[in-house]
Amino acid sequence: MSALVFERFLSTPEIVAVFSENAVVQAMMDFEAALARAQAAEGMIPAAAAQAIAGVCKAELFDVPALVAASGRCGSLAIPLVKKLTETVALFDAAAAGYVHWGSTSQDVIDTAMVLQTRRALALIDRDLSGLIGSLQSLAREHAGAPMLARTLMQPAQVVSFDFKLVSWIAPLVRAQQRLRDAGRAALQLQLGGAVGTLAVMGRHGAAVARRMADALQLALPPGAWHTQRDALASLACEVGVLTGTLGKIAKDISLLAQAEVGELAEASGGGRGGSSAMPHKRNPVASMIALSAASRVPQRVSALLSAMVQEHERGLSNWQAELAESAGLYIATHGAVKALADAAGAIEVDAARMRSNIDALHGLVFAESIAMLFATRIGKAQAHALLERLSNESVNGQRHLRDVTLLELSRDDALRSLFDASEVAALFEPEAAAQHASQLARPQLDALSRQAQGLAESAPWALWLNG
Amino acid sequence: MSALVFERFLSTPEIVAVFSENAVVQAMMDFEAALARAQAAEGMIPAAAAQAIAGVCKAELFDVPALVAASGRCGSLAIPLVKKLTETVALFDAAAAGYVHWGSTSQDVIDTAMVLQTRRALALIDRDLSGLIGSLQSLAREHAGAPMLARTLMQPAQVVSFDFKLVSWIAPLVRAQQRLRDAGRAALQLQLGGAVGTLAVMGRHGAAVARRMADALQLALPPGAWHTQRDALASLACEVGVLTGTLGKIAKDISLLAQAEVGELAEASGGGRGGSSAMPHKRNPVASMIALSAASRVPQRVSALLSAMVQEHERGLSNWQAELAESAGLYIATHGAVKALADAAGAIEVDAARMRSNIDALHGLVFAESIAMLFATRIGKAQAHALLERLSNESVNGQRHLRDVTLLELSRDDALRSLFDASEVAALFEPEAAAQHASQLARPQLDALSRQAQGLAESAPWALWLNG
Amino acid sequence: MSALVFERFLSTPEIVAVFSENAVVQAMMDFEAALARAQAAEGMIPAAAAQAIAGVCKAELFDVPALVAASGRCGSLAIPLVKKLTETVALFDAAAAGYVHWGSTSQDVIDTAMVLQTRRALALIDRDLSGLIGSLQSLAREHAGAPMLARTLMQPAQVVSFDFKLVSWIAPLVRAQQRLRDAGRAALQLQLGGAVGTLAVMGRHGAAVARRMADALQLALPPGAWHTQRDALASLACEVGVLTGTLGKIAKDISLLAQAEVGELAEASGGGRGGSSAMPHKRNPVASMIALSAASRVPQRVSALLSAMVQEHERGLSNWQAELAESAGLYIATHGAVKALADAAGAIEVDAARMRSNIDALHGLVFAESIAMLFATRIGKAQAHALLERLSNESVNGQRHLRDVTLLELSRDDALRSLFDASEVAALFEPEAAAQHASQLARPQLDALSRQAQGLAESAPWALWLNG
Amino acid sequence: MSALVFERFLSTPEIVAVFSENAVVQAMMDFEAALARAQAAEGMIPAAAAQAIAGVCKAELFDVPALVAASGRCGSLAIPLVKKLTETVALFDAAAAGYVHWGSTSQDVIDTAMVLQTRRALALIDRDLSGLIGSLQSLAREHAGAPMLARTLMQPAQVVSFDFKLVSWIAPLVRAQQRLRDAGRAALQLQLGGAVGTLAVMGRHGAAVARRMADALQLALPPGAWHTQRDALASLACEVGVLTGTLGKIAKDISLLAQAEVGELAEASGGGRGGSSAMPHKRNPVASMIALSAASRVPQRVSALLSAMVQEHERGLSNWQAELAESAGLYIATHGAVKALADAAGAIEVDAARMRSNIDALHGLVFAESIAMLFATRIGKAQAHALLERLSNESVNGQRHLRDVTLLELSRDDALRSLFDASEVAALFEPEAAAQHASQLARPQLDALSRQAQGLAESAPWALWLNG
Repeated sequence: MSALVFERFLSTPEIVAVFSENAVVQAMMDFEAALARAQAAEGMIPAAAAQAIAGVCKAELFDVPALVAASGRCGSLAIPLVKKLTETVALFDAAAAGYVHWGSTSQDVIDTAMVLQTRRALALIDRDLSGLIGSLQSLAREHAGAPMLARTLMQPAQVVSFDFKLVSWIAPLVRAQQRLRDAGRAALQLQLGGAVGTLAVMGRHGAAVARRMADALQLALPPGAWHTQRDALASLACEVGVLTGTLGKIAKDISLLAQAEVGELAEASGGGRGGSSAMPHKRNPVASMIALSAASRVPQRVSALLSAMVQEHERGLSNWQAELAESAGLYIATHGAVKALADAAGAIEVDAARMRSNIDALHGLVFAESIAMLFATRIGKAQAHALLERLSNESVNGQRHLRDVTLLELSRDDALRSLFDASEVAALFEPEAAAQHASQLARPQLDALSRQAQGLAESAPWALWLNG
Repeated sequence: MSALVFERFLSTPEIVAVFSENAVVQAMMDFEAALARAQAAEGMIPAAAAQAIAGVCKAELFDVPALVAASGRCGSLAIPLVKKLTETVALFDAAAAGYVHWGSTSQDVIDTAMVLQTRRALALIDRDLSGLIGSLQSLAREHAGAPMLARTLMQPAQVVSFDFKLVSWIAPLVRAQQRLRDAGRAALQLQLGGAVGTLAVMGRHGAAVARRMADALQLALPPGAWHTQRDALASLACEVGVLTGTLGKIAKDISLLAQAEVGELAEASGGGRGGSSAMPHKRNPVASMIALSAASRVPQRVSALLSAMVQEHERGLSNWQAELAESAGLYIATHGAVKALADAAGAIEVDAARMRSNIDALHGLVFAESIAMLFATRIGKAQAHALLERLSNESVNGQRHLRDVTLLELSRDDALRSLFDASEVAALFEPEAAAQHASQLARPQLDALSRQAQGLAESAPWALWLNG
Repeated sequence: MSALVFERFLSTPEIVAVFSENAVVQAMMDFEAALARAQAAEGMIPAAAAQAIAGVCKAELFDVPALVAASGRCGSLAIPLVKKLTETVALFDAAAAGYVHWGSTSQDVIDTAMVLQTRRALALIDRDLSGLIGSLQSLAREHAGAPMLARTLMQPAQVVSFDFKLVSWIAPLVRAQQRLRDAGRAALQLQLGGAVGTLAVMGRHGAAVARRMADALQLALPPGAWHTQRDALASLACEVGVLTGTLGKIAKDISLLAQAEVGELAEASGGGRGGSSAMPHKRNPVASMIALSAASRVPQRVSALLSAMVQEHERGLSNWQAELAESAGLYIATHGAVKALADAAGAIEVDAARMRSNIDALHGLVFAESIAMLFATRIGKAQAHALLERLSNESVNGQRHLRDVTLLELSRDDALRSLFDASEVAALFEPEAAAQHASQLARPQLDALSRQAQGLAESAPWALWLNG
Repeated sequence: MSALVFERFLSTPEIVAVFSENAVVQAMMDFEAALARAQAAEGMIPAAAAQAIAGVCKAELFDVPALVAASGRCGSLAIPLVKKLTETVALFDAAAAGYVHWGSTSQDVIDTAMVLQTRRALALIDRDLSGLIGSLQSLAREHAGAPMLARTLMQPAQVVSFDFKLVSWIAPLVRAQQRLRDAGRAALQLQLGGAVGTLAVMGRHGAAVARRMADALQLALPPGAWHTQRDALASLACEVGVLTGTLGKIAKDISLLAQAEVGELAEASGGGRGGSSAMPHKRNPVASMIALSAASRVPQRVSALLSAMVQEHERGLSNWQAELAESAGLYIATHGAVKALADAAGAIEVDAARMRSNIDALHGLVFAESIAMLFATRIGKAQAHALLERLSNESVNGQRHLRDVTLLELSRDDALRSLFDASEVAALFEPEAAAQHASQLARPQLDALSRQAQGLAESAPWALWLNG
């Protein structure tokens, strides 16, 4: 178990497993096995040595907690791991032991292992992002055109439709998925440089060994070691941060809409989540809680990783190590968030009637601007605004619907009546009309997003690594 | 003057001007003019009104400091600006005044203005990034193959070449420029949505008006308003952060190499910078100071912008405003950094002799691993390491060059002498050989980077906006 | 004007003035004048020289924007300032010019100036914090015992009283004020060390000069220079951050309670703030917006300042400069927040009837736990919980008040009726009773806080510097 | 094992144990036992029930990993823990089971448990901070007056003494320890409020139960629940951040002084740390690496905790949870840093000869300002500076010691010779004199710090909790 106690309920068992001690150690072993095989293929070391080494590169053969504990003393996990691996190889083949980790350096094996874990993390995030996008699209189809309040500065503003609102959730998710894939492709690359990046010990074989290893591990082959060039990893972390920002935005909206006093959405309870036997009226928005928590924590991780880019010379003192320590948490929190929202979106309860009654409770005031704009076209903007301000005040003070107040005004004011038809004015107070307009804007966007998401879902680049 | 006192010497007059009150107000005016013209072209408002409006959309006609001061009372700069603009239009054409800002909202004009300023900021950063890359490439050509210590964990490790080191500075800069351009292209888009993003007031004209405005302002046309979809801007800010991380890495290396005790590089003094009349021996690395300062401040800005993505509903309360307040500082600090390093790189003093003498001062110990690796091929890794450890200790304790100690050992140990030739061993102690190997790795990378940088320099997408 | 455009509406004119170019330059001049006078008093320089120097230490005599612009070239504001000051003194007294800034260093004058500005900032924050606390206490007295929903995880939980809630706003503010004062007292100290902190040039006079300067500037006298000991300033910044966190918490609650659908509180509109002529129903919580914005930005500034503590040797390269650049923003945002909330709290509209109707709208479900606890005392916790879960479901499904459902159950179930009295059960459904209990807890805390706040208000340590 | 793989070598086994799953669960059990006992003492529940509950409040009776895994499903660790505890009590005493967690809420037990863990963390940090301070004081005594370069902006500036430099390391540590204790005393308080902070279920017994629990757990008794008043905890976290900033500053200095080219300090190698068999010349400053890493990571944690203060209403949605998830890492990193430096400081190797030779290598240029100041007293500042600039240039260009150049000038220039004595001038070039002056400033400060540290060491408030 490798996450801290209070990170568990903000994450998922799958992502915790990705960064578990065992998984990290196995990834390091995978590097060592690939290195030995590549060197044998290039004739640098005997084929038998490579076989002996690769044969024991299995985490289950090692006392992983002891290795991790030893890393505390050595200042690096690679040192005890290479030592133990060498000893273990020597049990079977003393000569082969000398070829373990040949020409490589601690940072090579640790960076490559982190890249391998990151790929698995991205696979999980990518999968559940597709699920979340899909569920939101279903919601948009199901509730197309449903009138709903738009709110600005946390106050009701005008009427839109629920599918219009969903576009503002879906579009940045689809873009995030695209950007994550681009950034991932650039960042998931082999690290192999030896002590200072020159692969000096491998002589003329260096490039070929690197090519073989990249092939074997299915990683990109960089033009050289990137020991202190952390930009690709940092850029990937940033895109994870941007995704989490969007997840937080969605979760914030859900949590606001799920307030008892608003009641337009509710996260499904059940499975022990969100409900409370003591307070049976409570429907805690637990998925939103998880996503919001990620959105508040991840930016600080991104900041830590950007700060850690300032790595001295050919290997950093403290910044590379800080980067390692901060990276996993970023992916753990983000997968927790995307998975929680994906689950929630698939079962979210939409109360369209409540959406409508929340509009009605405002007595038509949210249509004041529309009316003012209509009036402005014929009596001028200033006068129209002044008029609507007065009518709105009458509506508020008299607790009457602004439509009624306005139509009464129209019936009393000959000048106005000559310019505007009562039915024309009354029509602007129809929530359905406003919702219809919004929904018409939303639909082509939703269609385009759907096609894009479909394309992304069909080409999932890391699906192979979903299960370790 | 719009930057805080103690940000001035970390920035440049050019970038400070981009985010000056006047420039921001002018960009808002540009939006209003483009809006009126587009609406006239679509027949929404009279052509004369558009002309009247556009005619006064000039910041110099307004008391800009008064507008900014009024923004403090109104909670938004758009409110007093639109009010003053309307009054001013009314002086010339009362009817036209009613069409000012028609169907738009504060966030439309403010976001679009920020996008326009951001484009100018990117133009400056992009220009000086090309300059910096060019200067570093010149250095790499000039000092190709010069032996230099590689240092890991702030300790000397092995010998590389100066051009090999320069690859680790140049490569992430070139990638940063490419990513900045991609992120910029996605983020530099028109904002136009009206009160809640539906352009309701513009009715069926909305889309056409938006298209015309995007054309006029030479901005990308988004599929809809992005009032609370901040991902493209956040992703751009992240890439600025990644660039600054690389600038910080370079500056850190320069500042370490410029220490009197190391003395391999020096920033040129002159023009009042970096020198000290009281302490004439001082050559303060002022450009590095500026870049390092940016690298430590920018990550927190990125964090603030990512945190600010969680914007409620159709317009955020506090987070959009926080984003506005944090954005400019990001670009100001980054241009300060890239300009300072570009200037410094063009005049940096390289002391290749000192690079060499710093290697020599280590008495060959940095070659211990190479020798061990050579010995390992014939006497086994364990034995080779044990031998080199002993020889190295003798070298340290006796203050003798490891080469001499090793050759003496060779001359005394028959077994060893039968396996290795003294000249073969001595050759490994040649800094030039190690540097040569590193330089050979560096050259094709430098060539590829040079082509890529050339291509980028020739296609500078924002050069038009370099001068406002 | 010294703040960035989009920071203006999140700040106040007073705090912007504190960190204006003129004010900072004047504070630096105050340092130089105090230095010259102290050195004259100690016989280090002629009295006439001190008089000549002090006589021109007036910012209005200088072209301040030119000095600030020159700081960009020099890498420090002190260098052009001392140069210009020396030239100006020389106009009147050539001999005196030689004694300007004698034995001091750039960091001495800049750090001390920042301390002087920080004191003025703290004076403003402290004053408005007292005002905010006072207004909240008035609210607590006025609305003592008013029933109100307590909400957990953004869902209604149980009933408390409005004064009980106010304790959770007031108590951390009072503690923040106390901690700010303690931290301020420790941090507001003279900086005087000369080139490397030893005051070497002043010889045996150093300590006495420092003592005189601290007296004259009314600053604490530290045991030595603190050029790279930034802990006291960082700790002060942290306490500002903690205060801002509490301001954000209050603002978050207000903004949630001010949603139209909740409607329990409203920020007064007026003065152009928060209202909207286009949308007359809107009552934007502008003060909350400002405070929330500060609460999201300030933590990143604190992070920047903590990161900047790692200052090399006897004067940092980049981190000291980053600290200078980040500090002002912290105080500017925080004063904006405290002032906005102080103004808002003095005019906040409390809708106690809405608080009550929001409770009633939940049909008694918020009392389920109380009833369960009563039942548990006699029928066991497990059985009681199961019973209430069933009754609550009946209440929800049947849209009936839980009280009615429960009393019906009581009337039907002989065993239950033998254990509980209907009136006893009905009493637990009274919001007033729950509110009363909460209010009784609140009152002694409010009294104690009131006494503490009173004491703090009477001893305002920086009131002298409220006006510059 | 509860820390992430790559945090292990940046932390200590002791602090990892403090925040282990078992330890956290035991602390939660301690809360439940104390609650039951206090309620029994107040007659709220039967004494036998309390005994039955307290009797099984032992983490080793439970499947802790299963509880933690279940927390992922429930959204809280308290829910499965209370459930399991209730079931376990029921095995022995069915009636008692009904009294488990009576009247309390999840946040009560989780917050109190975190406070208990935090106290253990502070005990460890406090102990090793005393050790670090003690070792640095020993160094200061041992090397009192040793001449050493002071460096500003990473360039040599003037000469001080090693004990003068040590003051700038020790003083902020002693202040940090004092502030940590003050902040700790305020923050280490019982959390007990029940569902919404009113302890409603406990009726009139609430206050007495809280008092008894605070006594039993030896925690401070707050005036009320602090479910959404996080200021005391945040302030404590800040002080941890300030401490880490100072640790980072010390580590930065050590790592710079330990560069091979500077060589004034070295961290002792041994025990597998810092050495390298492949590169025997390497003495990696591993302790500095750990402390620097903490200093770059902790500020972001502080930022996360400050951001998380904005907790809604009576229990936050996401921010409280984020706070829990971020807190442990702060203490883990900080203890790693303080322990690493404490160990390093006790065995650090000081090369006073190298300190001296690094001064000499600068050919007297670091004394230029002292000479200029001497000359200025008689020939005026401007002329003195001009002269020294010329002499310094001659020194640099001619590779001659500035003393020799200056004395030659004196011998040639009659006017000068009449004003200054050659021996007076030569004396200023003595490193020992400058070091002596610095050391005299340092000594009284060191004495005062020693007394203060002594007092702190003798009153260690949390020593009781050093071992769990």
